[in-house]
Amino acid sequence: MSNFWSLYPDLQEQLDEVTKIIEDSVRDSHDFIINAVHDTVQSGGKLLRPAFVLLGSTFGEEPKRNILNLAAIVEMLHIATLIHDDIIDEAKLRRGVESVQSKYGKDSAVFIGDYLFAKIFTLVSEDFHKESAIGLSKVIMKICRGELIQYSVRYKFNSSIMQYLRIITGKTASLFSVSLLVGAEETNANEKIKSALAKTGYRIGMAFQIIDDCLDYSTKNIIKKSTMNDLKQGYLTLPVIYALQNDKDGKLENLLKNSTFTNEEIGLIHSAVVENNGLEQSRTLARKYTQKAYDSLRKLPDCESKDRLKYIIDKLLIRDY
Amino acid sequence: MSNFWSLYPDLQEQLDEVTKIIEDSVRDSHDFIINAVHDTVQSGGKLLRPAFVLLGSTFGEEPKRNILNLAAIVEMLHIATLIHDDIIDEAKLRRGVESVQSKYGKDSAVFIGDYLFAKIFTLVSEDFHKESAIGLSKVIMKICRGELIQYSVRYKFNSSIMQYLRIITGKTASLFSVSLLVGAEETNANEKIKSALAKTGYRIGMAFQIIDDCLDYSTKNIIKKSTMNDLKQGYLTLPVIYALQNDKDGKLENLLKNSTFTNEEIGLIHSAVVENNGLEQSRTLARKYTQKAYDSLRKLPDCESKDRLKYIIDKLLIRDY
Repeated sequence: MSNFWSLYPDLQEQLDEVTKIIEDSVRDSHDFIINAVHDTVQSGGKLLRPAFVLLGSTFGEEPKRNILNLAAIVEMLHIATLIHDDIIDEAKLRRGVESVQSKYGKDSAVFIGDYLFAKIFTLVSEDFHKESAIGLSKVIMKICRGELIQYSVRYKFNSSIMQYLRIITGKTASLFSVSLLVGAEETNANEKIKSALAKTGYRIGMAFQIIDDCLDYSTKNIIKKSTMNDLKQGYLTLPVIYALQNDKDGKLENLLKNSTFTNEEIGLIHSAVVENNGLEQSRTLARKYTQKAYDSLRKLPDCESKDRLKYIIDKLLIRDY
Repeated sequence: MSNFWSLYPDLQEQLDEVTKIIEDSVRDSHDFIINAVHDTVQSGGKLLRPAFVLLGSTFGEEPKRNILNLAAIVEMLHIATLIHDDIIDEAKLRRGVESVQSKYGKDSAVFIGDYLFAKIFTLVSEDFHKESAIGLSKVIMKICRGELIQYSVRYKFNSSIMQYLRIITGKTASLFSVSLLVGAEETNANEKIKSALAKTGYRIGMAFQIIDDCLDYSTKNIIKKSTMNDLKQGYLTLPVIYALQNDKDGKLENLLKNSTFTNEEIGLIHSAVVENNGLEQSRTLARKYTQKAYDSLRKLPDCESKDRLKYIIDKLLIRDY
């Protein structure tokens, strides 16, 4: 388990319970599904999204009996998208553990993910507000749209910041946003609070993903294997997109056209991204989203959960990148 | 368009409308999705499932304004499962048209299918009974479970009739059943009628799929390419499973262990399935399900829709196989 929540043992305890609920809810399915879910939840993520559901739920006016179940549903949605994502990336590992597609084959991974989607909709339709069901469905649509845009703009060296932002909205921000929102929705929080929570989640997600993409270029001359694979497949992240916009002599574009890279070329790409201000401009945008996250957080009434959300922003977004 | 409904031009007209609704409902998505859906709906299937929804809806006590939308949702669910199915089968064609995975790549096909699932859940949550949402989610779970069983029993030459029946429940019968059921659900039909409709749909589906599997072995010495591919991948259908149970000398099992087949071996497999009574026992089971479909149909009150359901059973299930 991650020690991200060590300051808040009560929250950690609830998240442990969420993990149990997730495993229990697929107990009557198929061995592949049971094991895939077990491996994923035991690999020790921070469980940010269910934590958002729990924190969001404290802003409402009514108590909610089964909010841990909703937190579990949201994490299951995340797991299902990761399983399908790994099929595409042909990822061998996920959080250091063998990925579902590598362990059970791509064929099974498609249906394990589909099963989880369907299970999520059954559970959410049975016990929660119609708005939560619709909210979660729409997140999946955004994720898919983001993935299809990402696929469509591969090798497009003039791809726009707007396209990138739409991709990471799908990849990260939309589920962060909805996680905070559905919690508040289920406890009937007022519209202002719901809007502030949804914005806070969205902005945390945007900053979080941009920072993740910055980290690939911030350590001198070291590019992670996964980033190299992205580059080989023509997937461009923000630092590269900015750098390409400033790439007057076309040097970076030429380097990126390759489908394999020597160590020297990797070094050159790295330098070109930094020299063309790609990293610096990305950092500026990440800081803007971080500031905006604090801005929307301030609109929430003072309470313990607000402090915890501030802690999350500090810890996730205030760092060297 | 298929001419399956030529006796019932009013129904054909409604199904044309359903096709339009399907295309309209993804209009605001991504080009890949718009085109994938367009290609699929224009390739001219019989639209059995939406027809079931429409027929089922006439058994209720209340009129239903937007039943065409529900029929469209059910067909979209079918389309989404076909798109994911084709990824697994690496199918090049679907109803004679290039398959989505072949045209847009496997990566896109995963997300096009996921998008459609999510769209289905959004639409059904927005406008229809909670029971319909849950019913449709559970069908997807059954389909996935069937697919995973099918994958798990590959090359298992002692796989059971029970496993086969569960696989085809997922593949065909569960969606046939739910299609008739949700129509009746939305117009508040009584429990007896809903149960008779669900059973009728299930039994039509079971007979339909068994007949389809019989057809592979009923024409002397001709095995379709798709069947051969199934055999090569270790997927066994009912005629083969029955034949293996009667395969005292292990001749058929030995033949099936290959991963490629000469024309001579194909002929030998074909003969062994027939000689070991695999085809005949399968036919008997198909006829049983057909009879049972008529039995549950008789429990419905006499009306035009009942006659049309009888027409469907006659046309789909009473034939040489």
